[in-house]
Amino acid sequence: MVKQERAARTRHALIQAAAAVFAEEGFVTASLSTISRRAGVSNGALHFHFANKSMLAEAVEAGAAKAVRDITEAASARQGDSLQTVVDATHELMGALAHDIVVRGGFELAGDCAYRGECSLRAQWQEWIEDTLRGAARNGALAEGVSWADSARVIVAATAGFEVLGGDDASWLSRQNVTRFWDVILPRLADRRNLAGLASAGTWPQPGIPAQDRSSLRASTEQ
Amino acid sequence: MVKQERAARTRHALIQAAAAVFAEEGFVTASLSTISRRAGVSNGALHFHFANKSMLAEAVEAGAAKAVRDITEAASARQGDSLQTVVDATHELMGALAHDIVVRGGFELAGDCAYRGECSLRAQWQEWIEDTLRGAARNGALAEGVSWADSARVIVAATAGFEVLGGDDASWLSRQNVTRFWDVILPRLADRRNLAGLASAGTWPQPGIPAQDRSSLRASTEQ
Repeated sequence: MVKQERAARTRHALIQAAAAVFAEEGFVTASLSTISRRAGVSNGALHFHFANKSMLAEAVEAGAAKAVRDITEAASARQGDSLQTVVDATHELMGALAHDIVVRGGFELAGDCAYRGECSLRAQWQEWIEDTLRGAARNGALAEGVSWADSARVIVAATAGFEVLGGDDASWLSRQNVTRFWDVILPRLADRRNLAGLASAGTWPQPGIPAQDRSSLRASTEQ
Repeated sequence: MVKQERAARTRHALIQAAAAVFAEEGFVTASLSTISRRAGVSNGALHFHFANKSMLAEAVEAGAAKAVRDITEAASARQGDSLQTVVDATHELMGALAHDIVVRGGFELAGDCAYRGECSLRAQWQEWIEDTLRGAARNGALAEGVSWADSARVIVAATAGFEVLGGDDASWLSRQNVTRFWDVILPRLADRRNLAGLASAGTWPQPGIPAQDRSSLRASTEQ
């Protein structure tokens, strides 16, 4: 392995380890020696890459911000109903909070009152939700009389709730939980003509989830 | 002032000060000398009442738990539609998070990964929401085909979101924000025959809010 490659791998391992320790202990309690031990590198190697704990926290936040941007940009780039775009992106973000320790660590830092970072993950997510819902209203995808701004606030608040409650109980981040949320919300938000075409469980490939489980919304609205 | 009275006032001032410092700095960073200074008492007086920081945190959590219990018990004791009971209690809880520093401090401790207390404020709130929604389903107050359990999860997640987002931006805790949430949610949750009788803005006395502002739901559903 060439030197540069090894350095990149060490840096990656340090960011992963820092994210895990920040998520478990909070910024103040997290110690650099716990982080380097967890990453399997020496204290010297840690200091070669990061001058202090704040720089590690910034790297975690930047990694989480990139993951959120990747999710929202990929969702926006797909063709189709803008409400479905939001449904899909919430599934992706909750999945990332459950399985990507850098995303979990970044959001834990965002909610850590002892740490005040530069980057606002929650604001980034909120702006995208608002932009997409505004677009949905423009395209007639929202039900009559439903405010895009109020709808955006419901979605932003609920996903912030999933994020926080999911720190203690991962079932809040599960595809099943997010699907049940949309089963309640979509019939109120979506224009009647589009509703049958929307999938609460998302439309992105979901390994391990049988296709028939994705049609819960259609079943419940056809009663 | 008799001795006992003075002791009770000191204890009260210490709990208020501790709640504020925990909310601002988190459990780990909060120092006993900051708390005693803020309460306007000596370090000795603090130690007379509380042996250590954890005991102060427990007192804050117990105060917050009592406030939540007062809110939910008062809501349950009132006659009327069970969905309106939930609407009213969410307004009260968000108001308490905005204006009662012990409630704010208690919930900040509940979300502080560096502190693990005994009492679970969020679980207490969730249980009450679930019990009340289950009762609403039994009484036919929910719309056909709407699951009480899914509805409860939406409300628990959204209120957890308001709580967390409200730590940085108090507008999430405002009566206006909570009213707009219910404007979106109630038409989906409530049985059609009851909907017109429900007030998104709550039915408890609200000093300073003109009565006509409480009827936003009715206006929006009568379009």
